[in-house]
Amino acid sequence: MKVVLLSGGVGGARFARGLVDAAGGANLTIVGNVGDDLEVLGMSVSPDLDSILYALAGLHDEERGWGRAGETWEALATVSALGGEDWFRLGDRDLGLHLVRTHALREGEPLSAVTARLARALGVEPAILPATDERLRTWIDTPAGSFAFQEWFVARGHRDEVDGVRFEGGAHAAAPGVLEAIGAADAILIAPSNPYVSIWPILAVPEIRGALEARRVPCVAVSPLVGGRAVKGPADRMLARMAGGTTPEHVAGCYSGLIDALVVDESDPTGPNAVRRVATKTLMTDLAASRRLAERVLEAAA
Amino acid sequence: MKVVLLSGGVGGARFARGLVDAAGGANLTIVGNVGDDLEVLGMSVSPDLDSILYALAGLHDEERGWGRAGETWEALATVSALGGEDWFRLGDRDLGLHLVRTHALREGEPLSAVTARLARALGVEPAILPATDERLRTWIDTPAGSFAFQEWFVARGHRDEVDGVRFEGGAHAAAPGVLEAIGAADAILIAPSNPYVSIWPILAVPEIRGALEARRVPCVAVSPLVGGRAVKGPADRMLARMAGGTTPEHVAGCYSGLIDALVVDESDPTGPNAVRRVATKTLMTDLAASRRLAERVLEAAA
Repeated sequence: MKVVLLSGGVGGARFARGLVDAAGGANLTIVGNVGDDLEVLGMSVSPDLDSILYALAGLHDEERGWGRAGETWEALATVSALGGEDWFRLGDRDLGLHLVRTHALREGEPLSAVTARLARALGVEPAILPATDERLRTWIDTPAGSFAFQEWFVARGHRDEVDGVRFEGGAHAAAPGVLEAIGAADAILIAPSNPYVSIWPILAVPEIRGALEARRVPCVAVSPLVGGRAVKGPADRMLARMAGGTTPEHVAGCYSGLIDALVVDESDPTGPNAVRRVATKTLMTDLAASRRLAERVLEAAA
Repeated sequence: MKVVLLSGGVGGARFARGLVDAAGGANLTIVGNVGDDLEVLGMSVSPDLDSILYALAGLHDEERGWGRAGETWEALATVSALGGEDWFRLGDRDLGLHLVRTHALREGEPLSAVTARLARALGVEPAILPATDERLRTWIDTPAGSFAFQEWFVARGHRDEVDGVRFEGGAHAAAPGVLEAIGAADAILIAPSNPYVSIWPILAVPEIRGALEARRVPCVAVSPLVGGRAVKGPADRMLARMAGGTTPEHVAGCYSGLIDALVVDESDPTGPNAVRRVATKTLMTDLAASRRLAERVLEAAA
């Protein structure tokens, strides 16, 4: 069964690991969010693609939830001591990857090609594709003003309420391989990521949204909420303010016309109405739980 | 006594520390070589300026002779694992400085301004100036071909014999402050650095060479050789091949018309003839030795 997964960062990466554990990596293509990519200290950083890479290579820090295990912070401490830009936490090992990627991008290699090369070097089997090779940036509108995603999320600690989400750039083309993978897929999955800032930036690529709208295979999304609450991050506050609530129906509304089923946690009692409800335990407390969730989602998509 | 020191990397940095120890840093301006600067992994690295910064900030690795003490190598190990450019050894702390400098240069700050800012942040008192803010690169002609300095020095381990040294770029302007410092100096010193690849690139800036030729104060060079042998590096082999020998006379010949005295080691029995000979112990085995050498050189220049 050929599967395409649309994924954001941490939750998506965890789910991707479960998928590989459940069904192997050979038939899996992961389309990653690049809306929260940023330039920091002149380096091109792709946090969501990296979370996926690190998780699938077994290099991720389980406890911290992002970045690499056994990470050290000497370079950033020096940057800090020298009065440099130190608001974005870059570990030394993580930095090594950013240096390689940034150098390759500057030499003209597309992000999709660099990502494939990094995945190969890390022994990662599934294809990991950025949604687009073009510059696509998520902007967050708040009562305090508009902020680039990472400024809102990291520098301001995502405290500002969100009135809207916008995507900088024009009609981006999908990265090479994305439409082909969706066209060949037996099932399309949407990871338990924040709909607005992790999945919408992928769907902001018109060709990808169009491919999902024209799908002839099931598309199943996993809700990132458990009992109406986000496991981590501001998804619940964003849904409450922008969609009017945090029920499965509100989550499904984020993917209107694009999904056939929503996998929700058992603790979310009802809904959605518009698409099929699949209830299970969605909290990925460990790899075994991620795998069980992935198996349940694959069943639902079969 | 206002002093200007022309300096290369390791030996020059060591001598600079001795000078600060002997006479304080307030009246010292160090003009550093930028001919061995390089771009590695998209970062702008200035090895000689950094050796001086680290030595004067007390951050240098005494044993290794270059880079920072207590250095770690996680980022480079990652670069290596990912198939990136790993021939030039960049430690994690060192990397932090390169990131700050590269980012500033990309934003349009001149190298002299960045260097001053880094020096301030590290609590370094003497003014440290690059010879020029413009791109000046040392090229090495060898029987195996021509190489950019660091390719010859690091990547090829400076094994190739040197037939000639050239400097890429046109008639560079001296960096702001350099000519003013030379004009106001009571003495000009040339550090015990490799004449060809550490000092000549400084003298390749026509305004600096001109200022030394027109000097009205003593200029004293310190030979980098002890008993006709380089303490470290290829200076002796280069002198033997390009100047025809490694005596004080051959060293003085590298600075023809620019110096009034050459400080040589007691183990070098005779010469030079063209300029005054000052013999002392020149081997800088520790900070006390560096200080004694600096005191002797300052006396000779008084």
